[in-house]
Amino acid sequence: MENRIITISREFGSGGRTVGKALAERLGLAYYDKELVEQVATETGFDPSYIEEHGEFAPVKSALAYFFPTPGHPGVMRGLSAADFLWVMQRDVILELAEKEPCVIVGRCADYILRDRRDTIHVFIHADMEFRKARILRLYGESDKTPEKRLQEKDAKRRVNYKHYTRQEWGMAQNYDLTLNTATLGIDRCVDIIADLFTNPVSREE
Amino acid sequence: MENRIITISREFGSGGRTVGKALAERLGLAYYDKELVEQVATETGFDPSYIEEHGEFAPVKSALAYFFPTPGHPGVMRGLSAADFLWVMQRDVILELAEKEPCVIVGRCADYILRDRRDTIHVFIHADMEFRKARILRLYGESDKTPEKRLQEKDAKRRVNYKHYTRQEWGMAQNYDLTLNTATLGIDRCVDIIADLFTNPVSREE
Repeated sequence: MENRIITISREFGSGGRTVGKALAERLGLAYYDKELVEQVATETGFDPSYIEEHGEFAPVKSALAYFFPTPGHPGVMRGLSAADFLWVMQRDVILELAEKEPCVIVGRCADYILRDRRDTIHVFIHADMEFRKARILRLYGESDKTPEKRLQEKDAKRRVNYKHYTRQEWGMAQNYDLTLNTATLGIDRCVDIIADLFTNPVSREE
Repeated sequence: MENRIITISREFGSGGRTVGKALAERLGLAYYDKELVEQVATETGFDPSYIEEHGEFAPVKSALAYFFPTPGHPGVMRGLSAADFLWVMQRDVILELAEKEPCVIVGRCADYILRDRRDTIHVFIHADMEFRKARILRLYGESDKTPEKRLQEKDAKRRVNYKHYTRQEWGMAQNYDLTLNTATLGIDRCVDIIADLFTNPVSREE
């Protein structure tokens, strides 16, 4: 079976997004990362910055976060939290995109959402703390938090969000076709390995 | 830095041993799997079949498993269980082998034991249930247990043993340079990817 889709999960600062963009370019695939946020924003009426903040992060615990149906949000159901509603909408958009066109999707539990598709490669990208620290300092500059703190916080939020919605452990090898350490493999080689797998899939009895 | 060692952790039936053997052959490395068991047997006086059974499996819980010093086992310390003693001896043998010669080591928490060596590539090999079922039936034939049961039991034992001695999760991407699904990548491609990484390491500031 020919491959159509690549999902990329990634530790913050590991270069997962860079790998995804390079793959989309080389293989002529659509690329969804921030673009997905915009699409969800259009379909839900949420502000893109709200989706960006909550779309991959721990569900909001506050009771205040619960919606009540309003004319402006006809799809919102009583008793569904804003985070859960966002999850449902994001999942629907990912399922639609997967049907629409061959693409690379970064983050947002896409590996789990598309786990039953045989035409999809699931990748997890990670790297050690030193590599990621240097990388986020170079890309995003200093902030009031230490780089370690920024990395730990982002990873923890993604881990909790993933666990909450998938009941799986974030980063477990068994959820992916391959997991790659960009620090020891180098970003270019990661792109080569995934592109080769995409283009030359193993033939299995379907 | 040049690479010297490859450690391979693997799900039962995934072909990890086959990948390891092919790598050792292609790269001219020593290969330790059963060979390691024999070396530990020589150094400890344990029967090879006992090491084979307990060396990667859950620690023995019974109080009867605790040793007392005897003239025949001068290295055994009072209060150390047989399983813990075996762990210590196995760890020492792995550390010695890593110093002695470039090699491939399969299983036995070698990834954890050699985690601080920069000249070592750590790999986890896994595959889905269907692939592994077909593979163990082909290689080992039928038994009184279903293939699923055999796979689940072996994996569970390895997982518990790994967690007990390393305090890490078995199969977490972050413990390895790469994890590969032999069912979707194919065994030959797994060998190619690892051999390329071994021969052409990324240069990082040491």
